[in-house]
Amino acid sequence: MALIEYHQASPEVRAVYDDIMATRRTDWINNFWKALAHDPATLRRVWEGLKAVMVPGALDPLTKEMIYIAVSVAQGCEYCIASHTAGARRAGMTAAMQAELMAVIGMAAMTNRLAQGLRVPVDTRFATPP
Amino acid sequence: MALIEYHQASPEVRAVYDDIMATRRTDWINNFWKALAHDPATLRRVWEGLKAVMVPGALDPLTKEMIYIAVSVAQGCEYCIASHTAGARRAGMTAAMQAELMAVIGMAAMTNRLAQGLRVPVDTRFATPP
Amino acid sequence: MALIEYHQASPEVRAVYDDIMATRRTDWINNFWKALAHDPATLRRVWEGLKAVMVPGALDPLTKEMIYIAVSVAQGCEYCIASHTAGARRAGMTAAMQAELMAVIGMAAMTNRLAQGLRVPVDTRFATPP
Amino acid sequence: MALIEYHQASPEVRAVYDDIMATRRTDWINNFWKALAHDPATLRRVWEGLKAVMVPGALDPLTKEMIYIAVSVAQGCEYCIASHTAGARRAGMTAAMQAELMAVIGMAAMTNRLAQGLRVPVDTRFATPP
Amino acid sequence: MALIEYHQASPEVRAVYDDIMATRRTDWINNFWKALAHDPATLRRVWEGLKAVMVPGALDPLTKEMIYIAVSVAQGCEYCIASHTAGARRAGMTAAMQAELMAVIGMAAMTNRLAQGLRVPVDTRFATPP
Amino acid sequence: MALIEYHQASPEVRAVYDDIMATRRTDWINNFWKALAHDPATLRRVWEGLKAVMVPGALDPLTKEMIYIAVSVAQGCEYCIASHTAGARRAGMTAAMQAELMAVIGMAAMTNRLAQGLRVPVDTRFATPP
Repeated sequence: MALIEYHQASPEVRAVYDDIMATRRTDWINNFWKALAHDPATLRRVWEGLKAVMVPGALDPLTKEMIYIAVSVAQGCEYCIASHTAGARRAGMTAAMQAELMAVIGMAAMTNRLAQGLRVPVDTRFATPP
Repeated sequence: MALIEYHQASPEVRAVYDDIMATRRTDWINNFWKALAHDPATLRRVWEGLKAVMVPGALDPLTKEMIYIAVSVAQGCEYCIASHTAGARRAGMTAAMQAELMAVIGMAAMTNRLAQGLRVPVDTRFATPP
Repeated sequence: MALIEYHQASPEVRAVYDDIMATRRTDWINNFWKALAHDPATLRRVWEGLKAVMVPGALDPLTKEMIYIAVSVAQGCEYCIASHTAGARRAGMTAAMQAELMAVIGMAAMTNRLAQGLRVPVDTRFATPP
Repeated sequence: MALIEYHQASPEVRAVYDDIMATRRTDWINNFWKALAHDPATLRRVWEGLKAVMVPGALDPLTKEMIYIAVSVAQGCEYCIASHTAGARRAGMTAAMQAELMAVIGMAAMTNRLAQGLRVPVDTRFATPP
Repeated sequence: MALIEYHQASPEVRAVYDDIMATRRTDWINNFWKALAHDPATLRRVWEGLKAVMVPGALDPLTKEMIYIAVSVAQGCEYCIASHTAGARRAGMTAAMQAELMAVIGMAAMTNRLAQGLRVPVDTRFATPP
Repeated sequence: MALIEYHQASPEVRAVYDDIMATRRTDWINNFWKALAHDPATLRRVWEGLKAVMVPGALDPLTKEMIYIAVSVAQGCEYCIASHTAGARRAGMTAAMQAELMAVIGMAAMTNRLAQGLRVPVDTRFATPP
């Protein structure tokens, strides 16, 4: 999908771009939004959703970025791995943290497949979360 | 795969079971290990790996459990979702934290597919992590 | 896998290439078939299957192409996203339709992971399709 | 996750439940929403997003439901397959349409893996969508 | 999908069922085919394809069944894991072979995610298979 | 992730590199290990695990490499497809074997999605492996 640059964007799209830059305290827009801008309604909905979800809350922004990376690796989205790895570093992820993140992702990927392949029944204790 | 209970297990398997219970300060073994016990070498290798990876380090155990859940959801492993959700709760995950975890996972799943579907090129700034 | 061009192809492969071009009313072969041509039996079987499946029936060709894109995005196949997006456009997909297609795919990806992560039990009403 | 029934729900959650039933012209709520209701903010955001995305537009509701099913199958979400198959039938999917939907999904799944396994390069013609 | 038993089946479907039983030297039909039988054309196409692919060739039937299991685990299809594990045992898979199969699947799942998460560039030596 | 070359590597990393080259009877290290080397503990653990898993046993090395490819295709890891296809060829995979491998992977991908999409119940005979 061709990328829509700020100077080409409609006022509706520019408003989202402005909010992205203001929220992130940055002066550029990454390609994901420029591709999504062909559909201004989805652009706004996805951005508003992301902003709401990634705000500091019960979990801090760095933890959220690392969870985002974990999903992106497990779903095989290279763009998202690249952009959220950058985001996690901005949020304070050290090399040691990244190494542990990757080790957990790898281990989970392995035990997921072992549990599925062996068709392990869910333990009664795990069956009904309160 | 039939589950191997403690009283049926070989000394080699019991040694792993004992270490699992001691490490986790619990008195039971969940089904995953009982299914894996048909292959004692893999049982030991996976357990030793998991123990090394999940130990407190640059990331705390709760963060690691939540990353584990994120991968398990993204890979569709129900057993692992159930067992690591229990693990995360034991490590202190509150209902508010779980809600945010799920919201981040859902959002990542959506933007992953949008980025892939739109074939968004990786931004130059993201291209070569130092 | 090296690509087998028409002039390099065996008569068996050329026959499939010819049928692809005739069926699609086009004068070129896309790389997928040129890579598959190393195995003429699979080339023929896959092409015959695709031709049977994509023919207008209870669903029109454009709907089928969009379903194809949805699967390709969800499985992370960049080649297939690219080729079937081109196919869908040829079949009449407008920019507005593509935007809605992507929005549905993204939403489905999100609710899939929420339903899996929350381990939602299938409603009794959904349990036994007639 | 325990399911929150209407009579147990907070006013905030009931307002979403009411809107779901009104929008769908039905008198019941399926389990997905009852599980999501532990997090009213996410419940509202996901419902509002779904409502916006699934509304008739450039694509009709039945086409959207079938795309939803395609993603759900490709991502392995049994709950979503069950609920959106029911939704597609309500929207007019006949047995013949469902058979073709499944045939396209299966074919796409196969050619996706062949294209990935053979590492087929994207054709120049597909490389830069306008 | 309701299952179509032999006595309920049309002559067209019975002909496929008969061929499945004759080819496999067995007197029963597993549920997969009974569900697929709602669409006789797809039933026949999938069965003919499977028969052609699983025949002894450059790879023996047991190796093929184990490859089938590997894909089924990696794609999270419980039905297929169950049915092809049974098929592999019939074809001679011992407990020791199954244990190694699972160990390889788990290891591949882990290194897949590490390679993706680290965005490892493909080595020049691997780039162009002859 | 930047790649750590042999001459830049710590003694701890070099020891693993040396063992990789000795075990594989080769004089070079592929990029996967050079990227993983930022985390020497994970580098060692993953290498030791891989070495143990891929050793000739009840399954021969070529069968193991083909299983590895099957998982890598089904999980969409291009790097792993490339490297293990090279590995399989080194272990003796002919063009005919590779063609059959790909055909089985494609067929499995298709029937997986059909079984999931049709929600086929596991046959009683498959339900409890001994």
